[in-house]
Amino acid sequence: LDYQHVQVPFEITLWIMLASLAKIGFHLYNKLPSVVPESCLLIFVGLIMGGIIYGLNDKSPPVMDTDIFFLYLLPPIVLDAGYFMPSRPFFENIGTILLYAVVGTIWNVFGIGFSLYGICQVKAFHLQDVSLLHNLLFGSLIAAVDPVAVLAVFEEIHVNEKLHILVFGESLLNDAVTVVLYKLFRSFCEMPTIKSVDVFAGIGKFFVVGLGGVFVGLTFGMTAAFTTRFTKDIRVIEPLFVFLYSYLSYLTAEMFHLSGIVAIIACAMGMKRYVEANISLKSHTTVKYFMKMWSSVSDTLIFIFLGVSTIGENHEWNWPYICFTVIFCLIWRALGVLVLTSFVNRFHVNTITSKDQFIIAYGGLRGAICFSLVFLLPDFHRKKLFIAATTVVILFTVFVQGTTIRPLVDLLAVKRKRESAPTVGEQIHIRFLDHLLAGIEDISGHWGQYYWKDKLEYFNSKYLQKILLREYDQPKSSIVLLYEKLERKHAIELAEAGQLGHAPSHPSLLNNDKTVITEKKLEDTLDLDVLENIHEILARNLYRIRRTGPAYNRHTLPGDTEPGEHAKEILILRHKSL
Amino acid sequence: LDYQHVQVPFEITLWIMLASLAKIGFHLYNKLPSVVPESCLLIFVGLIMGGIIYGLNDKSPPVMDTDIFFLYLLPPIVLDAGYFMPSRPFFENIGTILLYAVVGTIWNVFGIGFSLYGICQVKAFHLQDVSLLHNLLFGSLIAAVDPVAVLAVFEEIHVNEKLHILVFGESLLNDAVTVVLYKLFRSFCEMPTIKSVDVFAGIGKFFVVGLGGVFVGLTFGMTAAFTTRFTKDIRVIEPLFVFLYSYLSYLTAEMFHLSGIVAIIACAMGMKRYVEANISLKSHTTVKYFMKMWSSVSDTLIFIFLGVSTIGENHEWNWPYICFTVIFCLIWRALGVLVLTSFVNRFHVNTITSKDQFIIAYGGLRGAICFSLVFLLPDFHRKKLFIAATTVVILFTVFVQGTTIRPLVDLLAVKRKRESAPTVGEQIHIRFLDHLLAGIEDISGHWGQYYWKDKLEYFNSKYLQKILLREYDQPKSSIVLLYEKLERKHAIELAEAGQLGHAPSHPSLLNNDKTVITEKKLEDTLDLDVLENIHEILARNLYRIRRTGPAYNRHTLPGDTEPGEHAKEILILRHKSL
Repeated sequence: LDYQHVQVPFEITLWIMLASLAKIGFHLYNKLPSVVPESCLLIFVGLIMGGIIYGLNDKSPPVMDTDIFFLYLLPPIVLDAGYFMPSRPFFENIGTILLYAVVGTIWNVFGIGFSLYGICQVKAFHLQDVSLLHNLLFGSLIAAVDPVAVLAVFEEIHVNEKLHILVFGESLLNDAVTVVLYKLFRSFCEMPTIKSVDVFAGIGKFFVVGLGGVFVGLTFGMTAAFTTRFTKDIRVIEPLFVFLYSYLSYLTAEMFHLSGIVAIIACAMGMKRYVEANISLKSHTTVKYFMKMWSSVSDTLIFIFLGVSTIGENHEWNWPYICFTVIFCLIWRALGVLVLTSFVNRFHVNTITSKDQFIIAYGGLRGAICFSLVFLLPDFHRKKLFIAATTVVILFTVFVQGTTIRPLVDLLAVKRKRESAPTVGEQIHIRFLDHLLAGIEDISGHWGQYYWKDKLEYFNSKYLQKILLREYDQPKSSIVLLYEKLERKHAIELAEAGQLGHAPSHPSLLNNDKTVITEKKLEDTLDLDVLENIHEILARNLYRIRRTGPAYNRHTLPGDTEPGEHAKEILILRHKSL
Repeated sequence: LDYQHVQVPFEITLWIMLASLAKIGFHLYNKLPSVVPESCLLIFVGLIMGGIIYGLNDKSPPVMDTDIFFLYLLPPIVLDAGYFMPSRPFFENIGTILLYAVVGTIWNVFGIGFSLYGICQVKAFHLQDVSLLHNLLFGSLIAAVDPVAVLAVFEEIHVNEKLHILVFGESLLNDAVTVVLYKLFRSFCEMPTIKSVDVFAGIGKFFVVGLGGVFVGLTFGMTAAFTTRFTKDIRVIEPLFVFLYSYLSYLTAEMFHLSGIVAIIACAMGMKRYVEANISLKSHTTVKYFMKMWSSVSDTLIFIFLGVSTIGENHEWNWPYICFTVIFCLIWRALGVLVLTSFVNRFHVNTITSKDQFIIAYGGLRGAICFSLVFLLPDFHRKKLFIAATTVVILFTVFVQGTTIRPLVDLLAVKRKRESAPTVGEQIHIRFLDHLLAGIEDISGHWGQYYWKDKLEYFNSKYLQKILLREYDQPKSSIVLLYEKLERKHAIELAEAGQLGHAPSHPSLLNNDKTVITEKKLEDTLDLDVLENIHEILARNLYRIRRTGPAYNRHTLPGDTEPGEHAKEILILRHKSL
């Protein structure tokens, strides 16, 4: 027996296996996952495992390694989140999300930090040795809402799209703020004196870390899209590039102390549309499924390790500090959401209701990121207290809030996600209204959301697509794609019901030698056929909509006017309105 | 800049990226891969990379770590090979393959070992210090044909299925022999005296290592199949189990010093049909594509690392030894193939032609396995000579033989692989003949290939399928599956040509709310629909073939006779014939 030799891969495989089997186990009992979120069950499994390890070895089980968490477990989840991010609601609410993520997080950090410092001044609690800076440092790590925990819970409760994107978007984008504040306070703790320059440098860092992340991500995303232009002859490794480039963007960002989470999201969102157009249908299925699988496994492992790491002797228990941490986390978040929302609601017609506000505040779950950050703290005499407080906050939010949020959503009758995808008719109307609003904004000289969106789309179709797409011919609009998908689905349904027509089914049987081309070949020819036939299909079966290409585009409508002239016209209008 | 922190994953990702980009690069120039095999090009890239590293650092570039090779790079390739192994030709030629793999490899080991020992006796070559045992040890590592190298070359030249399976099957199954002989001679080298007991123990080990590998593999394969029965509610992690269980089988076999390659092949071949039936269509696409992708990347990395590791200062050059190694490798392999084939041809009607024999002998490529084994050798004063000789043999076989085999195949007009898949008619005939031959063997009392195949199929449908399949209802015969696939393909083609009928396309547009169900749902319902409708489809469109289930099976044909009675009858017949 030679266990030493295979130990590392064997144990990793066994952990993943345990995680997957635990998942299967929950789903065998249908009632369990519908009452308790999976994350709670997984933490529970972790606690049991930790207890067993603790009982057998009589020493604390290994805690989750921060490097393993940040380098291997977190990226797949964030990549999945970014790749499948519904871009329309995200960009429609980007202002609100950023407000929550940046201002809200700062609000929480300082609120929790200062009020905990206040608690520390009470002599009866024996906490006078915890300085203000340490409290702020603790605040910076405990304030951040965790994307993994939020995703795990919100994916199961199906609230409406806007609410979901507000909470989830905040949890993703606050990473930049958390990274900056955490590193800032940690370096302040080690400095003898703090100059005002350092504080300003810290504020400047926000922008560097966040925008730098976006820049790194977009660079890698565009490179990935460009690379997939040339993979036609080696379909097999196409999916690889999606993973390699996103992972490189994350690592590069981390290397330069930028926000890796922001980078990987920017990379995934940036490359998605181009990659999807370039790679084959089967490669795309592989990318989608593998991404889901990988993130699901990472997610499972994180929660199990959270449970395992909780067991042990690295906790210092101080009732007042821990209780007040939980209370302040709840209060400051609720206050923050109230204040920020009242501010946001002034500028929007479609306001955030008080029910939604409650769910946003209540959905501020903490998770593995806090946990990893608290273990990353430099050693000082109260570190174990911070670890204990963080553990309690995480378990409280995941177990208590995570379990009760679903009944609360039912009780409050929060607006749910619509079950069906938008119909073709709806999609046409949405597109029509977008163009209309862009036109209105143009005429009124208001540089609003639709104006910029339209400009971006123009830039995309004029330059980006030509560089990044393999067969740049005409933009495949989402309506055409949907129509194709429907037709294909319908055809398969017909074939399976045996109603495919009695005449056409014979030739396929007779000309076997011709039709039984190997799968690979079929797939290669598919794209070409599709492109050639789209117009024909549309002309025959769909309403006679205009092409979304040049003929339909606002920029070329009145006799192909130059965009330069157009811009001038807008400037004049803008000038007038001022 | 914090490079230390992300170094490990960053460098791994960069190497994979380099490998993938190199692959894209070759395929951009269509002429290149059609003349030179990809493996040669990759080794060439590796040589350049190694040269650059050597030039910059002025020290030998890192050699490929044997642990990395055996634990991480080899398993994906072997898994892919096993999973996509065409089981029919493999089992039809299993006797010949085993003969080549076991007897052929032993023949080569001793042939090369003894004749090199003879060369060492020539005083002019200054090689008298290389003992017979060391020569045999060297022979055991250099004799083994490498599956990675064979696959890389043979996948490109498309010889006929039988020839391909003979060479490739041998390269896979000789692993057990190589492992045993290599370890045997290595331990003999370290022993002061060798008893005859040790030699017999060595011979016994063959069976333990080989059959033990098969046992471990089948155990994990069946467990994998059983696990996928319960993944209906979590389709996302289905593909994972295929990979986890196969990898575990490999690691477990390696842990017990059994043949990991044999184990993973047994696991993959054993689980395939059950897993395919249990998991969803999209999960299966993911499994297939990801397996191909992973093995392709591993393969690429292995050849690049081979190139990189070649550069450096760990070579001792001795012209006679190296030249004679190459010559003896060629001669002994050619002789072995001739002798063994003449033996095999006596027992077969469908003989192996002399052209095929030439290709089998010529296709005995060496690769990364030899390379890793030679680096694993214990340190002794002639290790560098062995490394040099191994490197030369690998480069010679991959470059010279690999490049010339395609023109030779063209020149000799070796029978090629048929391009099209078998038609429905052919499949029906093959199945019919199988049943007929099984019946003839039964009546004649001959326990031949078809008899055992039939028995195995009976055991499978009677017991295994009931335990391992989720919805055991009736066996989906491959003909039905093929028919379904054809119909679906045809339907998609019709839909894309816009000829799906003018009436049916309207309802799909009108009832959008109903038909636009999310993809996930559709896929869940698909399997059920398919099952329900198969009979209907067949009844309407296909010839009225009998069910391959109970009604069609020989064992139940005459009024459901018990298999017990049946066995008696066969025994009587057998008795008579004796």
